[in-house]
Amino acid sequence: MNTRKALKGTVAAIIASATLFGFAGLANAADGQGVEQLKEHGAAQRIAGVYGNTKADNVILFIGDGMGDSEITVARNYLHGVNGSFDGLDKIGQPNLNKGVETGTGQYTTFSLGNSSNDSLMAKDKNGQLTGSKTAGVITPVTDSSASGSSWATGTKTYNNAVDVDVEGNPQLNLIELAKAAGKATGNVTTAEIQDATPAVLESHSSERACYGPQGKWDGSDKNGDGVVDLKDAEAAGIGSCLAPQLKANGGIGSISEQLIDTRADVTIGGGAKYFNQLNQSGETLWQQAANEGFQTVKSGDVDGFKALSYQENKPVLALLGDGNLPTQFQNTPALAQKETEARGPVDCKVSPDWLGNKGASLADFTDKAIDLLKANPKSKNGFFLQVEGASIDKQDHAANACGQIGETDDLDKAISAALNKVDLSNTLVIVTADHAHTSQIVSEPPAYALSTILKNRDGSQTVISYGTATANDPDAENPEVGYNDGGMEHTGTQLRIAASGPGASRVDGLTDQTDNFYTIAHALGLATEKADQDKLSDGASVTAKDNKNQVFDIAGFNGDAVLRYELKDKDGKVVSASDATTPLSGLRVKTAGVTTLDLSKFINSDAKYSLTVTGQQSGKTVEIKDFAGPNGTEGNGAAQVGPNASNDKPVASGKVNAPKQNGVLGKTGATVLGVALLAMALVAGGLAIKFAKSRNA
Amino acid sequence: MNTRKALKGTVAAIIASATLFGFAGLANAADGQGVEQLKEHGAAQRIAGVYGNTKADNVILFIGDGMGDSEITVARNYLHGVNGSFDGLDKIGQPNLNKGVETGTGQYTTFSLGNSSNDSLMAKDKNGQLTGSKTAGVITPVTDSSASGSSWATGTKTYNNAVDVDVEGNPQLNLIELAKAAGKATGNVTTAEIQDATPAVLESHSSERACYGPQGKWDGSDKNGDGVVDLKDAEAAGIGSCLAPQLKANGGIGSISEQLIDTRADVTIGGGAKYFNQLNQSGETLWQQAANEGFQTVKSGDVDGFKALSYQENKPVLALLGDGNLPTQFQNTPALAQKETEARGPVDCKVSPDWLGNKGASLADFTDKAIDLLKANPKSKNGFFLQVEGASIDKQDHAANACGQIGETDDLDKAISAALNKVDLSNTLVIVTADHAHTSQIVSEPPAYALSTILKNRDGSQTVISYGTATANDPDAENPEVGYNDGGMEHTGTQLRIAASGPGASRVDGLTDQTDNFYTIAHALGLATEKADQDKLSDGASVTAKDNKNQVFDIAGFNGDAVLRYELKDKDGKVVSASDATTPLSGLRVKTAGVTTLDLSKFINSDAKYSLTVTGQQSGKTVEIKDFAGPNGTEGNGAAQVGPNASNDKPVASGKVNAPKQNGVLGKTGATVLGVALLAMALVAGGLAIKFAKSRNA
Repeated sequence: MNTRKALKGTVAAIIASATLFGFAGLANAADGQGVEQLKEHGAAQRIAGVYGNTKADNVILFIGDGMGDSEITVARNYLHGVNGSFDGLDKIGQPNLNKGVETGTGQYTTFSLGNSSNDSLMAKDKNGQLTGSKTAGVITPVTDSSASGSSWATGTKTYNNAVDVDVEGNPQLNLIELAKAAGKATGNVTTAEIQDATPAVLESHSSERACYGPQGKWDGSDKNGDGVVDLKDAEAAGIGSCLAPQLKANGGIGSISEQLIDTRADVTIGGGAKYFNQLNQSGETLWQQAANEGFQTVKSGDVDGFKALSYQENKPVLALLGDGNLPTQFQNTPALAQKETEARGPVDCKVSPDWLGNKGASLADFTDKAIDLLKANPKSKNGFFLQVEGASIDKQDHAANACGQIGETDDLDKAISAALNKVDLSNTLVIVTADHAHTSQIVSEPPAYALSTILKNRDGSQTVISYGTATANDPDAENPEVGYNDGGMEHTGTQLRIAASGPGASRVDGLTDQTDNFYTIAHALGLATEKADQDKLSDGASVTAKDNKNQVFDIAGFNGDAVLRYELKDKDGKVVSASDATTPLSGLRVKTAGVTTLDLSKFINSDAKYSLTVTGQQSGKTVEIKDFAGPNGTEGNGAAQVGPNASNDKPVASGKVNAPKQNGVLGKTGATVLGVALLAMALVAGGLAIKFAKSRNA
Repeated sequence: MNTRKALKGTVAAIIASATLFGFAGLANAADGQGVEQLKEHGAAQRIAGVYGNTKADNVILFIGDGMGDSEITVARNYLHGVNGSFDGLDKIGQPNLNKGVETGTGQYTTFSLGNSSNDSLMAKDKNGQLTGSKTAGVITPVTDSSASGSSWATGTKTYNNAVDVDVEGNPQLNLIELAKAAGKATGNVTTAEIQDATPAVLESHSSERACYGPQGKWDGSDKNGDGVVDLKDAEAAGIGSCLAPQLKANGGIGSISEQLIDTRADVTIGGGAKYFNQLNQSGETLWQQAANEGFQTVKSGDVDGFKALSYQENKPVLALLGDGNLPTQFQNTPALAQKETEARGPVDCKVSPDWLGNKGASLADFTDKAIDLLKANPKSKNGFFLQVEGASIDKQDHAANACGQIGETDDLDKAISAALNKVDLSNTLVIVTADHAHTSQIVSEPPAYALSTILKNRDGSQTVISYGTATANDPDAENPEVGYNDGGMEHTGTQLRIAASGPGASRVDGLTDQTDNFYTIAHALGLATEKADQDKLSDGASVTAKDNKNQVFDIAGFNGDAVLRYELKDKDGKVVSASDATTPLSGLRVKTAGVTTLDLSKFINSDAKYSLTVTGQQSGKTVEIKDFAGPNGTEGNGAAQVGPNASNDKPVASGKVNAPKQNGVLGKTGATVLGVALLAMALVAGGLAIKFAKSRNA
């Protein structure tokens, strides 16, 4: 059935989709849908239309990256004994330990929509060529962290490697953007580089998860050794982890780090400090830019600075305590081949001297601090949303490092306990889950096929943990000093645990999908979930010249948008400046719930009349200012001419949003959006091909 | 703390245990307990004291053997698409699909208490010898099917290989025994050999799961080729899968098959017909014995006989449709090494011509028939308990046969659907879970270390399934005709899914232990769970001579016991006959809620007076008949002398239960029980050593 064309990107089409195919949640034993259906916002929900009964003031989402049921059990066995319990992790969702509080536990599916890593698993045409783009037409049962994070952050299924864009590259609004639009305080905490996929899905929209900064993954150091740090060093380091049109230099919305600054969560804590040494369009480091824009910044290693952080008005926190991913609690215990594992015998995990928890900066400390900062923020009267990620369960699972993953699970557990000491479950929904399952398995004996480690459990028993999913044998497997340190073990695709306590928690009961989690959180917080409601968030959009020179404009109220387009015409109707429209990630990045500045002084230089149109790329809402005069325009004694929708009593050009011109939903640029989306996919696909050969960073 | 002695087997000790160590369910972040605590009945519960609010008339427990979350996901991906749903399996526990019905979903732990398979993982003394028995002192994070089945069937954690006996070999009452004691109808359905661990835990108490019949695993055929089928053939086949003192020939309670006949569930359907060709003490086949005792029997291949089955008063159903495990729905798809897997490409599963579902005898058909039979049974006015096992998810996982495990999961799903068509969830609790997780993992690409198969999913996508837990490389791995057909992949120890719909279902929410499931089911049905309450089930025990010869006795009402002991003394107080007491499995097997016959005609042959004592081995309750006369005794004109507690108006010797003589709970044989238990462990341990080297049958 070729319904592809009919289903493109409109709410009407989503409704049509629901009618034609039925949402999986509405009937059971439904055959699974294909990518053409599932790519639509909300289409992969398993419990569509099932809302929790209660609203929560606050939501805290704990993500154990790669923390499948096996990883939970391994860590519990080791840390607390096979019959023991986690203090925090096992409390969430547990009815008997949450008297009078709503609880829920269940399983959810985590699949994604496309994978660029393995041609042999993708559809081909009769000539043996991959059909369409590499990201279209193929459901991938095993997700990476970026696709899965995008699922719960936006409610839209997408391809592995995507950060809050759909399979066609269109940005999808995320929970922090929506929470900010609703006036809530927001936070984002991780033990990973803050640009890593799981935190990135609350900061940015990117076709490639590796687009850490304007210079990709350059660490900001003097790579060419010329004594000067400049873009030549970035070139020496190898630029190019970003889709080119997404870069600000090319008229795009910018890298993950730059968008983090634009998104401006109230609290951001994690690693990845070195990438903020990259240089922005003005030649400043991103650290400088963040400081200029009012952030309280804490850099790698500055634990005292972290501890001293306190709420300051309009000064969000950006604390990146390590240059890369933060050190794990436990030292490496490399998995070995069968005989070597048996010869080594059972091992104890040893605390790493590098672990920041030794200095009072563990994930639990981050969480405690984040909640304090959010509570002190006046916006928290409207509630807050906080995500806390234990990132290196995944990373150490990739590295077949049992102690590494266990220590990180312990840190997450303690972070949950720290939160439970600070919040009231009668008004705060706490969810604990993972983004995908992982490789580690508990077996009775060291296996012949896989690598393994024997762990000495707290109760005196032993857990044998096995790692066998790597696609290449590890040359270092028998070297105890290295093991699989460089990663290589793979994610797995099983359904996994989700648990919740607090208002709305029961919505995680039963079998759900990762995209349902977006709705669970958004409903609890009263956020806009459906496209039409999200579009309405831009109904208050306005464009106002900064002064009566009418050259620089403040754009506000496009809260239903992530990207803006603009077009400036002269008095003859000729376009003198316009935003780039090469891809859906081209254009101006919206500073969510803030003010986005558009400087057109290079183009508005005569005194004749101009017309400016600004369009929200997601909502289709448009602000138009017609026939205003340039800097020395005579009409109005130097005051600007205002457009038909602008207020007439101001000396500056300004406008408010027009009613959309087409079919009640899409603004007048709707058709254009679809056009560039298709173009974009080709570009995205090309960019994806090499980058995702191994999902080792997931 | 050496509390071992103080904690032996009494209710007082269980209470002491709870006081000294605290049940894990009562506090969180509790360090896990050791075997010394966990071995007590109920001690491994995570939600001790948390009861469901509602009673159910009926309970149906669906067990997918080895059906971890990964196995569920693999089968869903293949059969219904990655976004699809099972009709039955995914409905249970799903709030939105069970309007007005109590639901629950959660995870549970499945560990066991001892493992005889791997010396290197067990405690040793300073001389390098294993300390104590192989089954004591070591928690095993990975269970086999018998220990896990024993957990939910009895509420007591035990060692791998144990069938409803604790780590010291003491029989623990199971759900069918307790349901029968409560006057309910009972059923036991599987696709495995009916003697296999999961069905066996509802039929029997055995120190070794391989104790299928009086001649172990002999198939009843003419092994020595002498043209006569007799015990010489059993010898030729190799007897010895049973602990010797458990055999009836040695004064024990008998094999699993013999106890199945004694337990007398109303409906038993599965495979394993050939083991009923074994010979009992009277030289009859077990088939003959079953028929003699009133069973309706249906033998291997007799599908018409199965279809014709209907309820007949006091004629329970024993239908074993295959000689061994029943054929799976799908043909074998052997897992291959990386290059071979890639070369083979994605595969479709093909229906096996041997599958009984082709003839209308699938697991769904069994389930449908079982429910019909149970409903037609007048005992069902008191409710029914039915277990349905999809056995070969596990067996095909062991064999690394993706299609095999998928087809068996499909069969289980359809059995659930069949049940949902027959029962009312307002009065019937349906639970779906597994006994342990298993080896199969969903990965993105064929791994280098493990064997794998690429499956063509219903939605056009592909699932790569990986098997890598075997402890020895498979010589046949690259032979597509064989693959891992002979088994070898291992169970895994992750927590896994439990889901329920119906009264009491919410008790599976959160994190529980497998032993909690015993309490969930027993509470819903109102069965006796605590030792003291179970002991009371023998309060109505009686012993009555069949006639006034006083040589053969009917024993009834020992419903709180699995094993009886007796002692016959002559007029001088000399013991002339007594049951064997070598192990806890020595003695007379109780015919639960029925009549157990004790023939003492060989010993009661004079006319002088005798005294007979019968003691319930679990309850400690004793019936004593003092000073009754032998067959031609003159006193009472040939009528027996009756004991002090017997009714005086009967011409036959009879007695009713005495009050226990020691500490309010244990009967007078209590001390003896403990003595033989210790002796038994040495025997059990010896028997375990070789038998469980590989858990391939689990």
